Amino acid sequence: MAQDRFDTVLVANRGEIAVRIIRAAQDLGLRAVAVYSDADADSLAVRLADAAVRIGPAHASKSYLDGAALLQAARDSGAGAIHPGYGFLSENAAFAESVEQAGLVFVGPTPQAIRTMGDKAAARAAAMAAGVPTVPGSAGEIASADEAVEVALTMGWPVMIKASAGGGGRGIRVANDATELRQQLPQAISEATAAFGHGGVYLERFIARARHIEVQILGDGERVIHCFERECSLQRRRQKVWEEAPSPVLNAATRAALCDSALRLARAVSYRGAGTLEYLFDETTGEFFFIEMNTRIQVEHPVTEMVTGVDLVQEMIRIALGHPLRLRQEDIALNGAAIEVRINAENAARNFFPSPGQVSALRVPGGPGVRFDTLMFAGCSVPAYYDSLLGKLIVHAHDRPAALRRLRRALGELQVEGVHTTAPLHLALCTAPEVVAAQFHTGFLEPWLASHPLTSPAQTAQTAPNSAAKPGDPA
Amino acid sequence: MAQDRFDTVLVANRGEIAVRIIRAAQDLGLRAVAVYSDADADSLAVRLADAAVRIGPAHASKSYLDGAALLQAARDSGAGAIHPGYGFLSENAAFAESVEQAGLVFVGPTPQAIRTMGDKAAARAAAMAAGVPTVPGSAGEIASADEAVEVALTMGWPVMIKASAGGGGRGIRVANDATELRQQLPQAISEATAAFGHGGVYLERFIARARHIEVQILGDGERVIHCFERECSLQRRRQKVWEEAPSPVLNAATRAALCDSALRLARAVSYRGAGTLEYLFDETTGEFFFIEMNTRIQVEHPVTEMVTGVDLVQEMIRIALGHPLRLRQEDIALNGAAIEVRINAENAARNFFPSPGQVSALRVPGGPGVRFDTLMFAGCSVPAYYDSLLGKLIVHAHDRPAALRRLRRALGELQVEGVHTTAPLHLALCTAPEVVAAQFHTGFLEPWLASHPLTSPAQTAQTAPNSAAKPGDPA
Repeated sequence: MAQDRFDTVLVANRGEIAVRIIRAAQDLGLRAVAVYSDADADSLAVRLADAAVRIGPAHASKSYLDGAALLQAARDSGAGAIHPGYGFLSENAAFAESVEQAGLVFVGPTPQAIRTMGDKAAARAAAMAAGVPTVPGSAGEIASADEAVEVALTMGWPVMIKASAGGGGRGIRVANDATELRQQLPQAISEATAAFGHGGVYLERFIARARHIEVQILGDGERVIHCFERECSLQRRRQKVWEEAPSPVLNAATRAALCDSALRLARAVSYRGAGTLEYLFDETTGEFFFIEMNTRIQVEHPVTEMVTGVDLVQEMIRIALGHPLRLRQEDIALNGAAIEVRINAENAARNFFPSPGQVSALRVPGGPGVRFDTLMFAGCSVPAYYDSLLGKLIVHAHDRPAALRRLRRALGELQVEGVHTTAPLHLALCTAPEVVAAQFHTGFLEPWLASHPLTSPAQTAQTAPNSAAKPGDPA
Repeated sequence: MAQDRFDTVLVANRGEIAVRIIRAAQDLGLRAVAVYSDADADSLAVRLADAAVRIGPAHASKSYLDGAALLQAARDSGAGAIHPGYGFLSENAAFAESVEQAGLVFVGPTPQAIRTMGDKAAARAAAMAAGVPTVPGSAGEIASADEAVEVALTMGWPVMIKASAGGGGRGIRVANDATELRQQLPQAISEATAAFGHGGVYLERFIARARHIEVQILGDGERVIHCFERECSLQRRRQKVWEEAPSPVLNAATRAALCDSALRLARAVSYRGAGTLEYLFDETTGEFFFIEMNTRIQVEHPVTEMVTGVDLVQEMIRIALGHPLRLRQEDIALNGAAIEVRINAENAARNFFPSPGQVSALRVPGGPGVRFDTLMFAGCSVPAYYDSLLGKLIVHAHDRPAALRRLRRALGELQVEGVHTTAPLHLALCTAPEVVAAQFHTGFLEPWLASHPLTSPAQTAQTAPNSAAKPGDPA
């Protein structure tokens, strides 16, 4: 690769995604440089990287969120590119700009694409301009109760009242008819004013029992392809816990229409890199609605890698190296079914209480169709400073029932001692009739958890007496 | 699977292949019963199986080769089928017969197919009858030294003397002229008698610089399909150490002719189960010659699984359950390139001296396209009683150069402490120009080793200071 734009990638992240990016860079024959906070000095990423640079103390604002420290680490280590991973600065347009201004390559889209898609209203406008369905809603903020009712009647009930300045699920109310809407509107406005200092609200149709389905795309700034969809409807506190590819409920025509719509929108912004367009899917009507785009690699990308055979992180880096897309749309085929479950350092039996600590022993699942992307090794520390993701167990098989059986088998092989994990949740989900039948939606998991208390890890049925995790020391 | 012939599989083997079969059975929703000798009481197979039965002391003749003990274990554990794995009793027609006579299912071909294909002369005759090219050689066993010389003169020198009952490279001698042939023949006969209980030998032309290429087939007794070929030309003492799929040197026409020939022969014996037809390929002429068939799963089966997506061990069990083949020939496609390297408990720097002992620490490679089929866990014992295979590192990527880069990366991640391994050999091979160019043959590796001394594991270059294996205690 003589004319490549760089030969060393700085991985501006931590945990399993840092390990993932290091592997992708090395698989391409490139050098990978890890960065670490004091809490991660002996992390797997540091061990596997070709070099590692300390960037600051444990607190993320002084390390993984410190753009200047990351740029300095890149200069010090001779890196020609920065891969931001997910979270932290991955969708920060100003950081991407500063990387480019420093003469380095940002492994991701242009700052302008990050900016457009990061603004929910701008993204929605871009989607509408590209002919991509969005959730029906008011054109902007609502000026009066009469206007609200008028708009709601054109959308159909129920509707959501959302605060313009809200986010992450906060500031949302649901109204089932005009009376409720008139009652709730003043409350929503005063709540928004109190919470966000801005009382503007807008309306969106509330789609009951919606499924979360998202389309993976890859672009090189000229050409864009899709790698089909993932379904991530099993969520707890709006965090995905279980992801699949393909969605078990899309028919071929809807899949084609969904993926085409994602291509239209990505092409409209000449998208470069890996990106994901998230949709709500209304199973009762077969309609899908664009909700937002993530302009980075996602946690759940491996299920797409398993069913398409495309190494998404390698492709991101190849594009950043200056290569045109290696793949044509017709090269991308769906093979079988893949499921990813998130293994978090949390006690599933005690309301997912965080469980940092030291992993005293580890057995990773193996065999065909099993992949375990983890930050763990025997003896590693799980710091309390960051998110609780220990690893992602991904299985692939020729169909979904076979993938479910394989997931159950692989979960039985996983053994983590010293910290609690969410593996018991996934063992229970593997055989839950609703999950087996793929009859779920984004609101399914939380009530299900309330009515299906999980046993503590030590009591969870395992195939061998020594495979039950020992109680850790939850902080 | 209500009308299946069994719901529990006894795994009549040990080590990584026992683990592999347990996983396949569990992935199918079946129970898997491990057997163990005293040396394997705390093995990974025992830990992962749904149940485990002791069958005898460490010595294989009193445990893994004791057919009566295996049958008793099957009865005691409620198993309805026995999977023999590879080695041990896997190609013993009498054992397969005794399994059937006990009312159990033998996961493999009929005793008659094992017998025909296990008899090298009969297999050769069957191949010729099916129009499959064989290495020029004697029509059957050789009756006298005079006959041997006469036959050899029609074939050209050098010739190989092979034991009819031999296999896996054992019982083979090479003679360069009539004098050597007359000298070696009596020795070959007495060795064959001692090793296999049958002194019959035959002659074959010795093809210099031949490549070892083999075809994977699956049959259900009615229909047979192939899963393309593997190349296993990198051998040491006639033992394969590095295997690939597909062969990097076959063109499409030769590949089609080779696989068709394998189908013809397998169909001629109405083959049932997984089997492999081994060939020598003469790169200079483009000719291939059938040499023998293995009527069992092979060590190197995972490379085929990686490039075709077919789970061969699951398919074997499905056929044994009484299902017709799930796959049609047109379902089988080659995707990318896979390489498997055998990680043995041997000191590559000290002439591959065996290195049994205890694995004190273990880090397994991970990430996309990496599979590690192993018997190891941290703290496991590697007994000296059996073969030295610790595990098989398999990588898959979109082409062979990408697979080689990934193999190198994964070997860097592998960390085994307490015993020596052959990982340093494979790290050296990854970048050897002949291996990168795929310019090798079955006689390549041994002289290459003589001229490329390997450094000891502790001195091998690794990406991180703590990833060098520590010296073990070679027995």
